[in-house]
Amino acid sequence: AERIRFILGEEDDSPAPPQLFTELDELLAVDGQEMEWKETARWIKFEEKVEQGGERWSKPHVATLSLHSLFELRTCIEKGSIMLDLEASSLPQVVEMIVDNQIETGLLKPELKDKVTYTLLRKHRHQTKKSNLRSLADIGKTVSSASRMFSNPDNGNAEANFLFLPLSLLQLKNKFMKKLPRDAEASNVLVGEVDFLENPFIAFVRLQQAVMLGALTEVPVPTRFLFILLGPKGKAKSYHEIGRAIATLMSDEVFHDIAYKAKDRQDLIAGIDEFLDEVIVLPPGEWDPAIRIEPPKSLPSSDKRKNMYSGGENLQMNGDTPHDGGHGGGGHGDCEELQRTGRFCGGLIKDIKRKAPFFASDFYDALNIQALSAILFIYLATVTNAITFGGLLGDATENMQGVLESFLGTAVTGAIFCLLAGQPLTILSSTGPVLVFERLLFNFSKDNDFDYLEFRLWIGLWSAFQCLVLVATDASFLVKYFTRFTEEGFSSLISFIFIYDAFKKMIKLADHYPINSEFKVDYITHYSCACKPVDPGKWSHPNHSVIPFFFLQDNTTIDWAALTAKECLKYGGKLEGNSCDYVPDITLMSFILFFGTYTCSMALKKFKTSRYFPTTARKLISDFAIILSILIFCGIDALVGVDTPKLIVPSEFKPTSPERGWFIPPFGGNPWWVYLAAAIPALLVTILIFMDQQITAVIVNRKEHKLKKGAGYHLDLFWVAILMIVCSFMGLPWYVAATVISIAHIDSLKMETETSAPGEQPKFLGVREQRVTGVIVFILTGVSVFMAPILKFIPMPVLYGVFLYMGVASLNGVQFMDRLKLLLMPLKHQPDFIYLRHVPLRRVHLFTFLQVVCLALLWILKSTVAAIIFPVMILALVAVRKAMDYLFSQHDLSFLDDVIPEKDKKKKEDEKKKKKKK
Amino acid sequence: AERIRFILGEEDDSPAPPQLFTELDELLAVDGQEMEWKETARWIKFEEKVEQGGERWSKPHVATLSLHSLFELRTCIEKGSIMLDLEASSLPQVVEMIVDNQIETGLLKPELKDKVTYTLLRKHRHQTKKSNLRSLADIGKTVSSASRMFSNPDNGNAEANFLFLPLSLLQLKNKFMKKLPRDAEASNVLVGEVDFLENPFIAFVRLQQAVMLGALTEVPVPTRFLFILLGPKGKAKSYHEIGRAIATLMSDEVFHDIAYKAKDRQDLIAGIDEFLDEVIVLPPGEWDPAIRIEPPKSLPSSDKRKNMYSGGENLQMNGDTPHDGGHGGGGHGDCEELQRTGRFCGGLIKDIKRKAPFFASDFYDALNIQALSAILFIYLATVTNAITFGGLLGDATENMQGVLESFLGTAVTGAIFCLLAGQPLTILSSTGPVLVFERLLFNFSKDNDFDYLEFRLWIGLWSAFQCLVLVATDASFLVKYFTRFTEEGFSSLISFIFIYDAFKKMIKLADHYPINSEFKVDYITHYSCACKPVDPGKWSHPNHSVIPFFFLQDNTTIDWAALTAKECLKYGGKLEGNSCDYVPDITLMSFILFFGTYTCSMALKKFKTSRYFPTTARKLISDFAIILSILIFCGIDALVGVDTPKLIVPSEFKPTSPERGWFIPPFGGNPWWVYLAAAIPALLVTILIFMDQQITAVIVNRKEHKLKKGAGYHLDLFWVAILMIVCSFMGLPWYVAATVISIAHIDSLKMETETSAPGEQPKFLGVREQRVTGVIVFILTGVSVFMAPILKFIPMPVLYGVFLYMGVASLNGVQFMDRLKLLLMPLKHQPDFIYLRHVPLRRVHLFTFLQVVCLALLWILKSTVAAIIFPVMILALVAVRKAMDYLFSQHDLSFLDDVIPEKDKKKKEDEKKKKKKK
Repeated sequence: AERIRFILGEEDDSPAPPQLFTELDELLAVDGQEMEWKETARWIKFEEKVEQGGERWSKPHVATLSLHSLFELRTCIEKGSIMLDLEASSLPQVVEMIVDNQIETGLLKPELKDKVTYTLLRKHRHQTKKSNLRSLADIGKTVSSASRMFSNPDNGNAEANFLFLPLSLLQLKNKFMKKLPRDAEASNVLVGEVDFLENPFIAFVRLQQAVMLGALTEVPVPTRFLFILLGPKGKAKSYHEIGRAIATLMSDEVFHDIAYKAKDRQDLIAGIDEFLDEVIVLPPGEWDPAIRIEPPKSLPSSDKRKNMYSGGENLQMNGDTPHDGGHGGGGHGDCEELQRTGRFCGGLIKDIKRKAPFFASDFYDALNIQALSAILFIYLATVTNAITFGGLLGDATENMQGVLESFLGTAVTGAIFCLLAGQPLTILSSTGPVLVFERLLFNFSKDNDFDYLEFRLWIGLWSAFQCLVLVATDASFLVKYFTRFTEEGFSSLISFIFIYDAFKKMIKLADHYPINSEFKVDYITHYSCACKPVDPGKWSHPNHSVIPFFFLQDNTTIDWAALTAKECLKYGGKLEGNSCDYVPDITLMSFILFFGTYTCSMALKKFKTSRYFPTTARKLISDFAIILSILIFCGIDALVGVDTPKLIVPSEFKPTSPERGWFIPPFGGNPWWVYLAAAIPALLVTILIFMDQQITAVIVNRKEHKLKKGAGYHLDLFWVAILMIVCSFMGLPWYVAATVISIAHIDSLKMETETSAPGEQPKFLGVREQRVTGVIVFILTGVSVFMAPILKFIPMPVLYGVFLYMGVASLNGVQFMDRLKLLLMPLKHQPDFIYLRHVPLRRVHLFTFLQVVCLALLWILKSTVAAIIFPVMILALVAVRKAMDYLFSQHDLSFLDDVIPEKDKKKKEDEKKKKKKK
Repeated sequence: AERIRFILGEEDDSPAPPQLFTELDELLAVDGQEMEWKETARWIKFEEKVEQGGERWSKPHVATLSLHSLFELRTCIEKGSIMLDLEASSLPQVVEMIVDNQIETGLLKPELKDKVTYTLLRKHRHQTKKSNLRSLADIGKTVSSASRMFSNPDNGNAEANFLFLPLSLLQLKNKFMKKLPRDAEASNVLVGEVDFLENPFIAFVRLQQAVMLGALTEVPVPTRFLFILLGPKGKAKSYHEIGRAIATLMSDEVFHDIAYKAKDRQDLIAGIDEFLDEVIVLPPGEWDPAIRIEPPKSLPSSDKRKNMYSGGENLQMNGDTPHDGGHGGGGHGDCEELQRTGRFCGGLIKDIKRKAPFFASDFYDALNIQALSAILFIYLATVTNAITFGGLLGDATENMQGVLESFLGTAVTGAIFCLLAGQPLTILSSTGPVLVFERLLFNFSKDNDFDYLEFRLWIGLWSAFQCLVLVATDASFLVKYFTRFTEEGFSSLISFIFIYDAFKKMIKLADHYPINSEFKVDYITHYSCACKPVDPGKWSHPNHSVIPFFFLQDNTTIDWAALTAKECLKYGGKLEGNSCDYVPDITLMSFILFFGTYTCSMALKKFKTSRYFPTTARKLISDFAIILSILIFCGIDALVGVDTPKLIVPSEFKPTSPERGWFIPPFGGNPWWVYLAAAIPALLVTILIFMDQQITAVIVNRKEHKLKKGAGYHLDLFWVAILMIVCSFMGLPWYVAATVISIAHIDSLKMETETSAPGEQPKFLGVREQRVTGVIVFILTGVSVFMAPILKFIPMPVLYGVFLYMGVASLNGVQFMDRLKLLLMPLKHQPDFIYLRHVPLRRVHLFTFLQVVCLALLWILKSTVAAIIFPVMILALVAVRKAMDYLFSQHDLSFLDDVIPEKDKKKKEDEKKKKKKK
């Protein structure tokens, strides 16, 4: 240990040694005739071996070694010739130096020199694609003849040949090269049995400078290390295992460092001993060595091992590594964005300073095909949302605000917010509580003969003012009291509402197009629906037994039978017949589209992890999953041709209600005291906006998302307030951050590493943080008014299916859902969650149960008129969480939730006090 | 090695040592006060540890050890006191003997005796359910006080207490007990740190007789081994690891044997060394020791290791274990059932002799809930099949054979076959080729004025005779030329036909109920369909401007408007109107039911491997997956109430055609030479029957199914022939084994082991081989005529969905399908199939490609009139396979297919010849 510390310790500031590519070549007889070196395995991080008959590379796997081979390797290093920092520029030169050294030290009989040299310079055959191998058979022959020439001492000429020939063709074409960093070096392991040796010929060579040793290595990488083991016949398997052992060691991070820095044989042996000490042992009776172990998802950092030599303690087996608290990602209590500055607008200024440097990159970071998919997906979600909320709003306010206002508002506020706000990944939208508030406000105005729009303008102004006060006083720092419990409760609830709404809309649709369940195929002649005047006697004319015509006041006649259902009702007729109440096919087709879109989106999204097709194709399909599903089911809808309800976008640009314009005059409609009284309802709106906005912001800015450009809680709220003023003056709805769509936006912009070393898992890198997708989405929303002819082919049930998908997808990875699932799982099937290792199951279930009760209460609240105080009740969640401090230990909570910052502080303060006392 | 061979070698005929339950108890301070022994891990085969905070058992996992702890353990065994075959009957006695021994050998200072004894007799706390622990807190106290009494030498009374108290309550209730065999013994590992010792106190004890040592062990199992390690403070983690090491060793099969048979310390050390030699090593940089390795699917047999000491060679790492040929299961060339006897009826007699002893068990083996599920599932499949084929047959033969004949035939032949045949798991059914033959035959008879049924009777008689000849001459031995290539080609083709037919039926249904894609909701008033007489003028009456009545010849009048569509057409009216050609809802509802049933069946079938609900519930749901899906979608259909086409079963028992009876007279209808000429078409039928029957039989009897009662190819064919005679005389369709339904039958009867040791995988045990399910299925089919009122609630699309499911499910696990999927997979995602390791991918793809071409040709053939020679073409598959011998090496074929027996023989013969020459 002392030695290792010494080896690793020195030159700490020198650059890290380059990555190694290790290749194991074995001496094999080809076609029973001549021997040649054949590549049988290779390592970057994990082992890949050549399948014996399969002529292919195995999957990368963890190299399982036998202890025996490691000890044999140790003996080899003890006894063989170790030549460190050899200066040589070609393989023949290296070989000669090794052989000479062995003869000098008496390890090799001089008469065997030629034979050993000849063997070591035999041709190398690498595992590449068959086609290459064949077309290059001739070259192989020349190389072989060239290498034969090496057996005579004069080899100046042949050497040049050797170096030149195969490099240009085989090596350079190798695609494997791109898996290696530019400065990688190679270590070549050569093992084989020969008949002329009685004692093994062993050499470990480190070259002074990495040198390209011709066709020795599969890829054109300069060789730094050489391990040679030639031994007497009969132990080929043992040699193979020793070769694998040294190759595995060379790909081990710690030994790799030692090998680069070793000064003598003892250093290397110390390295092997260190490796042996750290090795993980599987009992033979519990594991089949024939199983290839898949590379693990995450690897222990080798720093731990390296640092151990500066006084750490032993690692422990089987998952007892000490855990540094349960901060799974939600903890944001200590993040810089939420520090209270105490200065006027201090937070806002810091936000701007933080975000400004990224403003340019916010545009060029969007240059990726993924952004296109995100734009299309979020655009459709936003348009659907705008239409639904617009429709409901028009309904609630007697068209004072309608679908067109909803479109315009969404487009303007969204685009400005995404362009200028602190967190451009947030998507603004109308939300449920705002809708409820508008409905109540409109009714109140109507009952009290107030001018609704003017009253609303003043509320908006007051509320915006209050928000700006909150911004100026850094009130957003309160967000840190939202723990995982609050966040997940809120976001789950919103997701449930999304799912519930999707189904509710479908059921409403089914109600609107009822199925005739009494229909019998054979009785088709009995079904009809005819338009009849309400009182035929009144209009009857003696010449007509049936009354097909009806005289309007202006003497035009109406052909009742030719009227459509709507016209019929309009002209005061009535529909008679047993098929009038039913609409065929539409409901069923809608359900097919609804479930089809949902299932298809889910399946295509999961396609990324399937085994089929190349990675790029899979990724593309997965990224465009929702758009593809929408297109597919629009196609199916068009094919079947049933008249399903379609997305109807307003196509004219004017206020929904003719009674209003695009500017609301602030004075004149209401008595003066109303302008002041508006401050009271404005307070409710402020709480509502603040809660909705900030919880979503917290969810968007979660640590799990690995955002690099920082958050901007104060800046976000600032823009929401400004936009509220604009919307109030223009009589447009108010907008806040929408949880589910924002999560969907982030999900569609997630980045992963391209795999580097074979077997290493791709890592989640972060989200494409930029402003382009958001801005374009909202510009498109605005332009939608002109795209009505295209959009009208999209059936509503398809969009409801997308809503269902968004609701379900946003529940993914939520710890609360995981815990809910635990309730249904028998103990032995429960996944190995970190909190299950540390918190008793009862406590976990209790926590889940309390959360469910809270959500159930919120749900009930939401369904009643009290919905307006819904955001206030979110605050109650914080209180409940606070109360939990008395029910659960801080240890349990640190795993199930985050610790409330207050507590942390208190602890620290307590500790300080104690120290002071001492 | 010599020593191990000696230890393991002796007393080879003595009974195997009993299974061990190993428990690791550690000395821990409870509530910072007193020390007590706490169970922290246990082993049967795999390790289960107590989660520190979780108060629960971890999942069983492979124990990963550190090499260091194994070496420390070795030192412990070298230095500690080893006491083998100690005679003692209680823990205090054992402890006293150990302590005395240590004092004698000078390992322990005499003054520490009391302290050590006191510590070792501290209370043991086991990891059981919390509720138990609490309610037993009092008992814990008594035990604790009892054990305190042990510290004084006089302990006769307290001992009784100790033995009695906790055993009855905690231990006996432990459910874990059922995981252990009856004769299991325990080994207890006690490790802990104490402050009074300076040198570790180590003892390994084997008792002469296993003794119940009171509350020492979690379960009431007598203790045989004790390992005690008490050491000075500060190295608790190291002691823990040593404890895990010895416990893992004790659960290792080989060391376990050595421990039982060891004579002295050296034997144990040799055992540890043997274990170390066999150990599998994972490099620290490639694996995170915190990951718990799931127990592998299959374990290497310890026999290999044991036998190694009688001169085997080293095991190899990473899946290079020599492979004994590619006989994946399909190979049946050498099975006893297909040996040619050469005697008259030799095979038949052997079949009867083989099956007769199982006849009784064929009934009582069916006593399982699974059988009920299988009966319902196969019954519905059979009924649907009978109806479909009956309908088609009625169509082809102008109702000379119709649905009722199909029902009767299925019931009679199926029941008799399942009751008496060689392989009662085979389900008989009409098949496509038979249908084609009947159609051709009927047309031929009609064109030539033959009596169809009589002609058919004679063909049947001839064919049955030919089949009986085949039986008598043991011709079924030819089956062994059907390799995996032929089998899988045939069964895949049949599965594809199933899938194709399911869709074809749905499309036909959609054609029959066309959707009105022009329908607009608003124009509902314009749609109608009225019945009108063909020539209204002819019947017009001066008094009526509209003609509601129509006088038939017998002076009754017809109200045209009141007629149904069918009646209208019957009375010569015509349907007029734009809705006449359309039927609403039914098609869409049918598709919902079709895909719904399929998806639901698939999902429920997979539910067995889900994490939710206890194993029994999951298994039940999975077993009843298809029935449940059918019920669910019948419910949905009833709920929506759309008039989907239902399963209509004939409810009267009489021939479909009134022109025929239940007995076909053999003479009188046709000229005499027809009786002889019938032998020629009969030949075709014979080949058809033989191929269909035997390929299905081969598939059913596959080695993968692990059938224990043997096959009966000859007996099967015998009954098929006999039943053919019966059917021919009664004018019923002919029946052969149906591939897909038979596979579904087997799948629904598969058995698995209940897991034994935690972590061990359940194994596929075989199939419930019995005659009951088959017999009941066919009796039910016969009785279906009376169940029409119930069956009429089942919509046809649901049953088509079941057909689709059966088609897809029977493709599962077919190697051909796996290879097809490989075509779409990039290299690195391909699963680790054994043949991919040994056969180059090009060759695999070539093999797949050839198979696809063959199937495509067969499919084309099947779609033309040549369908009748379809079974003959299966023979062509055998020829193709034969030709492949020239294209592929025997090595490749042995992995991709089976080797044709002939070749084996030839090789052997060649070898024999060579030997003779020598």
